[in-house]
Amino acid sequence: MKTAPRIRIDLGSPVAAGRQIVDAIRAHLVEGELAPGDVLPSVRRLAMELGVHFNTVAQAYRQLAEEGWLDLKHGRRAAVIGRGPVADAGPDKVLHFQRRLREMVAEMRAHGVAQDSIADELRLFAERLKS
Amino acid sequence: MKTAPRIRIDLGSPVAAGRQIVDAIRAHLVEGELAPGDVLPSVRRLAMELGVHFNTVAQAYRQLAEEGWLDLKHGRRAAVIGRGPVADAGPDKVLHFQRRLREMVAEMRAHGVAQDSIADELRLFAERLKS
Repeated sequence: MKTAPRIRIDLGSPVAAGRQIVDAIRAHLVEGELAPGDVLPSVRRLAMELGVHFNTVAQAYRQLAEEGWLDLKHGRRAAVIGRGPVADAGPDKVLHFQRRLREMVAEMRAHGVAQDSIADELRLFAERLKS
Repeated sequence: MKTAPRIRIDLGSPVAAGRQIVDAIRAHLVEGELAPGDVLPSVRRLAMELGVHFNTVAQAYRQLAEEGWLDLKHGRRAAVIGRGPVADAGPDKVLHFQRRLREMVAEMRAHGVAQDSIADELRLFAERLKS
């Protein structure tokens, strides 16, 4: 059994820890580092590792289960399941993400990341998506 | 006096309303749609417009004041002030934003936005930054 990819969160961030856990695990799922059949760390263990409350991890796992990524029903372990095909995002969702992307770019600039570096970063991500 | 740019938030989003307000106003500030001397809507008016609690807007304004964008001291109105030069972001901050960008791309894919569309979007933002 392969080792689960590391989940990192930033306790100093204004983004709630639970949301950071969801976002980090979802990225591993979308990118295939976590695949159907893989088992996540127990709620208790991940909570200890990250230094957050048990309930924060439990709630994050529940959200990912609602999104169709995890099976929480059998036993105590959260298992990755195959997610059916996803409907194409409608224009509302695309607009929503455009807004959030714009706001993240603004936040990077506000924090002193140079415009050219941000542009390079965005291009790098775009390239990776093409493969 | 020019009209203040519109602030949009999504009350159905898992992102806290206060954070959405901060992100939306910060984007206007970074992009220059809000400039020093401009005055934001009163806390009460914006709270009513957005359908959120008075304190949520007040807290968002305080955060933007802490980030150096707003002056809240004189009278009741939040005024945009000139922000001094920002220190270059250190490697930690750059890594932090890379992670968040990666997670946002994963979230878009999980919501059914096609990889090619995401790549096009990222390139478009990169182009805008070069100008």
